[in-house]
Amino acid sequence: MEVYLDNNATTVVDPKVYEEMKPFFCDIYGNPNSLHKFGSGTHPKMVEALNFLYAGINAADEDDVIITANATESNNTVIKGIWIDKILNGDKKHIITSEVEHPAITATCKFLESQGVAVTYLPVNEDGVLEASLVRDFIKEDTALVTIMWANNETGKIFPIKEIGAICKEFGVPFHTDATQAIGKVTVDVQDCNVDYLSFSAHKFHGPKGVGGLYIRKGFGLTPLLHGGEQMGGLRAGTVDVASMVGMGWAMKLATSTMAIAYEKNHVSKLRDKLENAILELPETVVIGGKDNRTPNTTLISFRGVEGESMLWDLNQNGIGASTGSACASEDLEANPVMNAFGSDSELAHTGVRFSLSRFNTEEQIDYAINVIKNAVTRLRGISSSYAYTPSCHKSSL
Amino acid sequence: MEVYLDNNATTVVDPKVYEEMKPFFCDIYGNPNSLHKFGSGTHPKMVEALNFLYAGINAADEDDVIITANATESNNTVIKGIWIDKILNGDKKHIITSEVEHPAITATCKFLESQGVAVTYLPVNEDGVLEASLVRDFIKEDTALVTIMWANNETGKIFPIKEIGAICKEFGVPFHTDATQAIGKVTVDVQDCNVDYLSFSAHKFHGPKGVGGLYIRKGFGLTPLLHGGEQMGGLRAGTVDVASMVGMGWAMKLATSTMAIAYEKNHVSKLRDKLENAILELPETVVIGGKDNRTPNTTLISFRGVEGESMLWDLNQNGIGASTGSACASEDLEANPVMNAFGSDSELAHTGVRFSLSRFNTEEQIDYAINVIKNAVTRLRGISSSYAYTPSCHKSSL
Repeated sequence: MEVYLDNNATTVVDPKVYEEMKPFFCDIYGNPNSLHKFGSGTHPKMVEALNFLYAGINAADEDDVIITANATESNNTVIKGIWIDKILNGDKKHIITSEVEHPAITATCKFLESQGVAVTYLPVNEDGVLEASLVRDFIKEDTALVTIMWANNETGKIFPIKEIGAICKEFGVPFHTDATQAIGKVTVDVQDCNVDYLSFSAHKFHGPKGVGGLYIRKGFGLTPLLHGGEQMGGLRAGTVDVASMVGMGWAMKLATSTMAIAYEKNHVSKLRDKLENAILELPETVVIGGKDNRTPNTTLISFRGVEGESMLWDLNQNGIGASTGSACASEDLEANPVMNAFGSDSELAHTGVRFSLSRFNTEEQIDYAINVIKNAVTRLRGISSSYAYTPSCHKSSL
Repeated sequence: MEVYLDNNATTVVDPKVYEEMKPFFCDIYGNPNSLHKFGSGTHPKMVEALNFLYAGINAADEDDVIITANATESNNTVIKGIWIDKILNGDKKHIITSEVEHPAITATCKFLESQGVAVTYLPVNEDGVLEASLVRDFIKEDTALVTIMWANNETGKIFPIKEIGAICKEFGVPFHTDATQAIGKVTVDVQDCNVDYLSFSAHKFHGPKGVGGLYIRKGFGLTPLLHGGEQMGGLRAGTVDVASMVGMGWAMKLATSTMAIAYEKNHVSKLRDKLENAILELPETVVIGGKDNRTPNTTLISFRGVEGESMLWDLNQNGIGASTGSACASEDLEANPVMNAFGSDSELAHTGVRFSLSRFNTEEQIDYAINVIKNAVTRLRGISSSYAYTPSCHKSSL
């Protein structure tokens, strides 16, 4: 049996999404900017897709939603646009983010530091959540941007975006959130949360890879990352990838309907909990960050004495795909940065395995996975030097 | 009949290319960076695609070819990377480009000018070609980059890339070329031409939209435009769009084989010439830039007394797609910037229509198009105030 439990890394394209994309490869192939029917023939489905994107995040009509290549591009667009407009060519000097952002945020902030920008990396608490009050403590007169993720990719922890949005509004500082791991899992509402910029990526919610989006509140336009043609109202140049835009629109519609969010909350979470509770029957296993306030599909579990990579290997041999953390950082074997941020001991930091489900997982798959995981843990602990020799020091408070 | 003659704006995806892409939406969908078979299952076809890309431009094994969203991103990556590395954080101050580049180059250079960078825009000669000696005349001690297109999108004129490459090498200045309109039309060889950076876009050679490439010679790495994960050796972050990468690889293979280039040269050019010669039988029509040294598929023709947009409208009514110039600039009705660069009178600058063919056009389509175009010109000149009242002043030297 094959069981894909790595949906925070990427997801299968929903067959319905693919059906909507298909005509735009070999049949309706014009450039949307062209002044003939090969071009204009693309417009109705593009408009429909854009409407789905606006509805999915509750953007106001006067706001912009631009199509990008991925959330990485969306994140770079905001952070570097703010750098150019407010710091290089303005009087601001400071950016606030967290210690547990995706590399697309962290690496961009590190680059800005190399250019003389002051960056504050706020820590998370022992539950892996950023406390909104920290933003208030560190926001300054010269703060150009606050950028905090909506939900963490590794733990699934949901951050207090509405509270942070209110603080940023109070201080008049633009607020960006990377909502890549939130869309399709919980309700995302840019108006309710006072978000000024929001990044997302289609392939995390059963759309195609290679396309993402960036919400920009009216009045918050910035220097584009991609200069060139007048596409996207001058906010992002480059021929629009019609097939992918249509696919992302449909993926958004399917993932963010009231029914879809309820399915995540009631059904996907139930499968996740079944998996998690069965694993927790094993001795010395723990859910990193605890069970509260997470996306419904994610659990990050530490198995003491078992290297995460060894576990993945065993699972993979049995047809199960999981992860030790962000796929964007998984080719090296450094300790999981999110687990480091928790302040875990370094042995523990290598023992986390993330299981992330989707609406395409079945109860039969979860039953199979439970069995494989239990056998793998038993086998690996049997040959683990650290499990044999280290006294039990597992912090249950994690 | 439908006849698509706007292949410099975008192309239909080759059905063979689409076949190769299909498995990567709903079947082989893992993240290539993931440490399980859902991820690694993508690798063989990605490696194959990358090999096709290297072969298509004759890149050396030690060089990099990175996957981007489009040529616009590739162009921005080079120009802004050079800006950050050599100008903001170095001692260079100057960039050389031409007056007839695509907006992805021109708008990016204008942005750099707003940041204090000196940019030289070299003019083209009366045939629409940049003379290599101009590069030698303007290159300076503090020149950080020379960026000159391989072939012009509007006239099809081929620029002396090999000579410019040699001059840049002599002066030790990095050389970038936007080869978007050259790939699949003429032989492109980065080693023979001493190119250090080369941009291309799949959808201009029967690949999908939303994916492009950037060749980077070994030793010419630069600060990435997209910071984030470690994809592409740290040169371009973001989850790789496997389907599009595979599609671009196959499109490159199909478009750049010896046979494909010969087909362009011998067959596509014959259809283009048939169309062009038939149009030139009409009085007061002229090929902008003349017939020499062009890509085999392109002709830009001025019909005196006929507004380009009126002509497009008539053609569109009869199922023919053509263009007044770059699709990236075609939504506004300003005079064609390339025709302006020729120094044409402003009346003439509004009368250009570009026909760009592909290997999918047939002789039957061209015969039909000739008939429609002749009727449209006759009709539009009959109602044209400028054609009725302006004395003939068409410069045949154009």
